[in-house]
Amino acid sequence: MSKRASSYVSQQRLWDRHESLARIGATAAGGVNRQALSQEDIAACRQLIEWGKSFGLQPSRDEVGNIFLRLAGRDALAAPVISGSHLDSQPTGGKYDGAYGVLTALEACQSIVESGIQPQRPIDVVAWMNEEGSRFAPGMMGAAVFAGARGLADIETVRDQQGVSVGDALSNAKQALIDIPQRDLGGPVFGYVEAHIEQGPLLERLQKTVGVVSGIQGKRTFVVNIEGEASHAGTSLRSERKDALLAAVRMIQALTARMHDEQDIVKFTIGRLNVTPNAPSVVPSSVRFSIDLRHPDSAVLTALGDAIAGICAAHAAPCKVRVEELSCAMSLEFPQAMRQRIRDAADTLGISQMEILSAAGHDARYLHPLCPSAMLFIPCHEGITHNESESITAADAADGARVLTEVLVSLAGS
Amino acid sequence: MSKRASSYVSQQRLWDRHESLARIGATAAGGVNRQALSQEDIAACRQLIEWGKSFGLQPSRDEVGNIFLRLAGRDALAAPVISGSHLDSQPTGGKYDGAYGVLTALEACQSIVESGIQPQRPIDVVAWMNEEGSRFAPGMMGAAVFAGARGLADIETVRDQQGVSVGDALSNAKQALIDIPQRDLGGPVFGYVEAHIEQGPLLERLQKTVGVVSGIQGKRTFVVNIEGEASHAGTSLRSERKDALLAAVRMIQALTARMHDEQDIVKFTIGRLNVTPNAPSVVPSSVRFSIDLRHPDSAVLTALGDAIAGICAAHAAPCKVRVEELSCAMSLEFPQAMRQRIRDAADTLGISQMEILSAAGHDARYLHPLCPSAMLFIPCHEGITHNESESITAADAADGARVLTEVLVSLAGS
Repeated sequence: MSKRASSYVSQQRLWDRHESLARIGATAAGGVNRQALSQEDIAACRQLIEWGKSFGLQPSRDEVGNIFLRLAGRDALAAPVISGSHLDSQPTGGKYDGAYGVLTALEACQSIVESGIQPQRPIDVVAWMNEEGSRFAPGMMGAAVFAGARGLADIETVRDQQGVSVGDALSNAKQALIDIPQRDLGGPVFGYVEAHIEQGPLLERLQKTVGVVSGIQGKRTFVVNIEGEASHAGTSLRSERKDALLAAVRMIQALTARMHDEQDIVKFTIGRLNVTPNAPSVVPSSVRFSIDLRHPDSAVLTALGDAIAGICAAHAAPCKVRVEELSCAMSLEFPQAMRQRIRDAADTLGISQMEILSAAGHDARYLHPLCPSAMLFIPCHEGITHNESESITAADAADGARVLTEVLVSLAGS
Repeated sequence: MSKRASSYVSQQRLWDRHESLARIGATAAGGVNRQALSQEDIAACRQLIEWGKSFGLQPSRDEVGNIFLRLAGRDALAAPVISGSHLDSQPTGGKYDGAYGVLTALEACQSIVESGIQPQRPIDVVAWMNEEGSRFAPGMMGAAVFAGARGLADIETVRDQQGVSVGDALSNAKQALIDIPQRDLGGPVFGYVEAHIEQGPLLERLQKTVGVVSGIQGKRTFVVNIEGEASHAGTSLRSERKDALLAAVRMIQALTARMHDEQDIVKFTIGRLNVTPNAPSVVPSSVRFSIDLRHPDSAVLTALGDAIAGICAAHAAPCKVRVEELSCAMSLEFPQAMRQRIRDAADTLGISQMEILSAAGHDARYLHPLCPSAMLFIPCHEGITHNESESITAADAADGARVLTEVLVSLAGS
């Protein structure tokens, strides 16, 4: 009997690639700043393509900037199995969020090649465009457009804080990767499996190596726009001011109070707040802030999200406020059959596993309606993520890659 | 008997120069964005120099970027009289804040020249560098360094939000004005008079054309630095977060409550607030915000300002906070003899006047310890300032220029 494909997983190679990739957009504090469609993000895609070509994978890209590397199947026309995640990061992100899922899918394909197995179906390694949504909001743009949940025209007009549109950034990325053939958006896709770091502390605390993800908690995102009036800090009377920042402070206090739950399940975050004109001696004329709200119970998520506009309006005077909802995604559950494949692979390899809910959103959210999808997590030290000090172990990374390899072989057919 | 110098003041010329200057850095909403040492600010200085040269004034500049235009006196060695204000603006500033004082001093000198008077002492029109402090904080840098209150080395390291230092911006401005001879910093100065728009509503409400400024209310400025910890908006528990923005919100609420006075005399403003990393799905790791605090009573100003650090510290947990005081200027009173000169000139010309306290800070604050100083105000529509819709009337502008002309003639000696 020949050796399993997963026995060809190289812990060292997988780890070295993480280190190598993290040098692209490296920050002084040991993290990465590789925002979507930036020069750094494009350079990371180029590096991924070179690695894939080195052992025979065929690169392609689609109109929305997703990058694919195909391991040919015996049946070239069969719907592929897709596995991957994203290479873009937060402005002060870590080395593993997203990168782990892409590099692990790459490692799985290399192990399958080295094992001599040619799977029945093609296997595509994917790097989805703009999962993080920090440069262009909201995130998961590449996966959403690929799966048909959003239209290309719909996202092209989104602009970053410097005024650059997604459309222009995509043209730029296309030029930089002009040698890579273009493929169509969308399915059919036979199955999708995404590996990712947990971004929470549970696996580490419970000493389990692999998390079989049961589903993803729901998320709604908003932007709150407050209009006040600029005036002189030294002369304008408090009673006559229309201070947009003080209105924002009142709203944030009231929102924080409303979102407070003793059980600490609600995730409510104001991550971005911009003041205009943002000068020390001018009363702020306008403020714009983001809201990120998540809850595993869709009914609670709906009720809390629906309360936001009213709370903001109640605390706006004498300013005006407009609340915009950017995205709304209810909680989802991955199919049992797909979760079972991950459990089986882990059990066969003697790697500990447990079921876990994903508190964070992932590209798999958008693949879920398109094809049977699943996710597997590995531990993330102290649950610290979206932070330059994000950390994992090389041994956990390799174990996750071994499980993923067996899941992909089982889906693609050996 | 020859005509008074003030009879040569041209309302049209003064108004046209305001309109012309306002085209440099003009904003779509009818204001100006001409921040200190920007290309626009330098272009405005160049325009000023050309106007001064057109009727024989001699331009010079000093090491800190202040621009002077000298009307020669009969005694070339006598200490000069200086009059002016600043040409830099807030990011969304008006056409008259600062510009009025410079253009009015220029108009006064041109009127004196046209009247055939050569004064005993030289008269210098001045445009002080960076009064506003919006690009480089704190403001009034040019006047402070000229008068010896701050050292050049002290301000050169201050950086704007793009990381450009005052030192580099000064070198750039010097290159752009390399044809203009350099003069020494500092005195002796025989007297300083600054004309300015009121930036408050009193003169308009009481229907007085000229305000004889009794003094300037005290001002303290601070920067509050909050250090928290970045984490993932979807996964990190509320109870374990170190959210720097929520800490800032608690501090601002507590500070606002402490600064509240029924009489509405305290001026407390948070005009700038920056969040890091400022991404929608990352819990803010740090926040930095400005405080501008003013009060005409130095004892109250001291007590309120001294309370700030303690209030911030009390609301910081679980984040850390550091409060830095950037500037501290107690209330000041201009000498009676100087104020009397303005009153006399207005009375002689039949222009209505009243005494008024300056709620806003001005360059005159720094000239006050160097030489006998004074200020005169003209009405500012509805007191709206540091705002693109700032407005004055051409008639008030000309009346202010007439009063200033007679004050300068009386100081410089006819």
